[in-house]
Amino acid sequence: MIVDCGLSFPDDEMFGIDIVIPDFTYILRNREKVKGMILTHGHEDHIGSIPYLLKELDVPIYGTKLTLGLVGNKLKEHGLKAKLNTIKPGQTVRIGEFKVEAIRTTHSIADAICLAIDTPVGLIFHSGDFKVDYTPLDGEPMDFHRLAKIGQKGVLLMLADSTNSERPGYTPSERTVGITLENIFRDYHDSRIITATFSSNIHRVQKIIDTAVKFNRRVSISGRSMVNVVKLASDIGYLKIPPNVLVDINKTKNIKDSELVIITTGSQGEPMSALSRMATNDHKAVQIKKGDVVILSSSPVPGNEKTVSNVVNKLFEKGAEVIYNDIADIHVSGHACEEELKLLHTLIKPKYFIPIHGEYRHLRRHAMIAESLGMEKDNIFILGNGDIISLRKDQATKLNETVPSSAVLVDGLGVGDVGNIVLRDRKLLSESGLIIVVAAIDKASGQISSGPDIISRGFVYVRESEDLIESARNVAKKCLDKCYKDGIKDWAAMKSALRSELQDYIYCCTKRNPVILPIFMEV
Amino acid sequence: MIVDCGLSFPDDEMFGIDIVIPDFTYILRNREKVKGMILTHGHEDHIGSIPYLLKELDVPIYGTKLTLGLVGNKLKEHGLKAKLNTIKPGQTVRIGEFKVEAIRTTHSIADAICLAIDTPVGLIFHSGDFKVDYTPLDGEPMDFHRLAKIGQKGVLLMLADSTNSERPGYTPSERTVGITLENIFRDYHDSRIITATFSSNIHRVQKIIDTAVKFNRRVSISGRSMVNVVKLASDIGYLKIPPNVLVDINKTKNIKDSELVIITTGSQGEPMSALSRMATNDHKAVQIKKGDVVILSSSPVPGNEKTVSNVVNKLFEKGAEVIYNDIADIHVSGHACEEELKLLHTLIKPKYFIPIHGEYRHLRRHAMIAESLGMEKDNIFILGNGDIISLRKDQATKLNETVPSSAVLVDGLGVGDVGNIVLRDRKLLSESGLIIVVAAIDKASGQISSGPDIISRGFVYVRESEDLIESARNVAKKCLDKCYKDGIKDWAAMKSALRSELQDYIYCCTKRNPVILPIFMEV
Repeated sequence: MIVDCGLSFPDDEMFGIDIVIPDFTYILRNREKVKGMILTHGHEDHIGSIPYLLKELDVPIYGTKLTLGLVGNKLKEHGLKAKLNTIKPGQTVRIGEFKVEAIRTTHSIADAICLAIDTPVGLIFHSGDFKVDYTPLDGEPMDFHRLAKIGQKGVLLMLADSTNSERPGYTPSERTVGITLENIFRDYHDSRIITATFSSNIHRVQKIIDTAVKFNRRVSISGRSMVNVVKLASDIGYLKIPPNVLVDINKTKNIKDSELVIITTGSQGEPMSALSRMATNDHKAVQIKKGDVVILSSSPVPGNEKTVSNVVNKLFEKGAEVIYNDIADIHVSGHACEEELKLLHTLIKPKYFIPIHGEYRHLRRHAMIAESLGMEKDNIFILGNGDIISLRKDQATKLNETVPSSAVLVDGLGVGDVGNIVLRDRKLLSESGLIIVVAAIDKASGQISSGPDIISRGFVYVRESEDLIESARNVAKKCLDKCYKDGIKDWAAMKSALRSELQDYIYCCTKRNPVILPIFMEV
Repeated sequence: MIVDCGLSFPDDEMFGIDIVIPDFTYILRNREKVKGMILTHGHEDHIGSIPYLLKELDVPIYGTKLTLGLVGNKLKEHGLKAKLNTIKPGQTVRIGEFKVEAIRTTHSIADAICLAIDTPVGLIFHSGDFKVDYTPLDGEPMDFHRLAKIGQKGVLLMLADSTNSERPGYTPSERTVGITLENIFRDYHDSRIITATFSSNIHRVQKIIDTAVKFNRRVSISGRSMVNVVKLASDIGYLKIPPNVLVDINKTKNIKDSELVIITTGSQGEPMSALSRMATNDHKAVQIKKGDVVILSSSPVPGNEKTVSNVVNKLFEKGAEVIYNDIADIHVSGHACEEELKLLHTLIKPKYFIPIHGEYRHLRRHAMIAESLGMEKDNIFILGNGDIISLRKDQATKLNETVPSSAVLVDGLGVGDVGNIVLRDRKLLSESGLIIVVAAIDKASGQISSGPDIISRGFVYVRESEDLIESARNVAKKCLDKCYKDGIKDWAAMKSALRSELQDYIYCCTKRNPVILPIFMEV
């Protein structure tokens, strides 16, 4: 049984890569053993790789209504079909040898569940992503009674979310955001209000809509994923929008500022998102103007701090009032902080524990929290990708072997065809560009019949550096002439001499190391 | 008179750029008017561009002892000399028509000053970078009496640091770091301790050394800039190291873990820094081992969050205990928070105010703080680079004209020769690599005499994509054959046809857009 099947986004060194998916080798090698996949919730890092697996293996998928709705949208984009089985919190499904109970939890997306997996050797508890929200907007908190029961039954192994393990205390309730939101609507009653948030946070979107209705504003939706999710969530009844509230984004010009709220994507400062385009006058329907109030109801995902700051600066420069989480309580995390983790550990009381979902520092911190609650150090496993834990009755062991688990890079339609060599070339090209030396050579005599010519890209602005290019050409010519004189006819040797001489020359003149690419044509 | 002459670091889109310096056009155009440069402190963003200006204009430089020491090191690297005039806090120097008083302030580098500039039309106060530290480690707090006097005299214009204007309250004193540091030394008395911090923070380095001495440890210095600054600061008496405390980094292997502290660079996770190399077993003298304690006495500079996190993860994976600012009070900012800014405004009481040193959001917030203290909105100028403020008796006006102020990119030895076209090429190359189509063509007839051949870099791993490359070659061949048949002999037209056909074909097969570069040789 597979739990979740997410993607990650490329880091700075993965030039040109769109997304990163897991290596499915082990799963495909054991395809007949795979009885199903169960999803804890519908965020990209938990469902994003499903289409790539489904292309190789038809596996039944279990999940809650919203989660499967989001999976369905994704499959449609890829032209795929799958057996999607909707489950409800509280329900138990049989997947192969396992009986899996879905337990309601709270997270920054609706319809999130934890899993109690009844296996022949004992119970496994999987937290999914969670926070402890006693007052979620849908009135359905985490099912503590059920968690307590499961803890009493005895849990062999727990896997739990470590994202916020470094943060002390508690994550505030989603409800606190609603209070800030109402205050902003009250304070800025004359202004057009634009709110950017994560499209998957249905509860947040609902609260924005409810607040708009309360303050007699209409609502317009902008950004592809926001439009898609609002439609999906409305269709399945998870989002309740009164009639005559929604207005097409292209028709907002006729609506008074004081009577409009725009809900948009772009809270991470993504350069192509609706909000960024509004801030750079590049959005077809909305331009930011003096007096607008822009609410960034989000926190920067690690790595996005600078792009978010850029969009904040641009919005301010356009004259908008910008309200973000540093200066107002307009976002809460979806993950449990230290005290919430302690609550979960205390309820579940597992014999063994694997901290999951976090960088190594977070996993380690989560392990320390478990230890502080009296757990044996030897019963906690901090695992790397591909590690294997073997479970027997009352016993968990880490095996020495591993399964293939390297990151698979997706670039356009190519899955895994961009490897380290291609990435290294892209990095080198990005740093100093390239210089091509092209020559037509008589293969028999080794004599140059045309060229060498020098062509460069991304190296220097050629018009202003004609002398440098011309002198590089002379260096290349001398080098080839010398090869000819010395009787060197082997193209590999000639190319190697060219590369080395040009590299030295260029570095000496410019302290740069462009890629040098000799190309010979036989004539 | 020029105040400070700093550099900035390239953003993510500035591929291959080493540093970014200001445009000196206006200064060079008015070279005979420039009477001197005065420096507020020795951080790179205030002194880093000096060598680039000095190469064009010999201008006398004024600064405090440590600041000029750091400038001197920099000039040596560039093989430059300059007239360096040491001033002391409390001293007044005449620079052209101006009388400039240096006033002691506190910042994350020793020897920082504010400037009171007496001009023919009134007093200008420049805060430099500052925080209000009542208990700095050198016992010399900001000269509040002098600031009060200057405020009483009447200040026409104030320019003040806005970095932390979004943070409420006060920045804690440097002394708080010392307390945490002692606690760590006490707790981990058996471990080797490695501390990474900014080399320019002499007081922090002094405190680490003092704590080491107190706990009977010897000290070793690692990282080029740390070694340089420690030497400079010791030479001028700003750093006091008792005899027999320092030990060469290559001789630390013979010293017991419990008797050693290593002070190193790399607190920003820079991949080539000493700390990163220690974490990846790439440092010649030090490898991180289980039981080591690594203290990151710093905060990530915006944009560096991920690299810092990467190094923290690596250190944990090697078995070290890592102590960083998220989990212990082991760093304080060098910049004033909201309440400190209010103190400065209240003491100086300027008629006009320009918030400086910050992104637009910080400048705007600082302006709002000034307004909240009763300042007229019209007397506050939020300026962009190149804007001009004209001062007359009792009056400041923003002019409509501007001076050239674009960022000048430095790549290796090249200053300003990498412009937008080159950067765009580097970006395109980094995203999908490039495909070169090379052919030898008989210019008269337009017939191909050799090729076309396809060479790619950074596009796909060629060995695994031979079919794709071969079919691309066929597309190119057909295209050139068609040109020949249609009588098209113009190389520009032929290249344009090739580019367009290949681009369509490649995009269709791969959803990628490599740079396509046709190269023809005349034979």
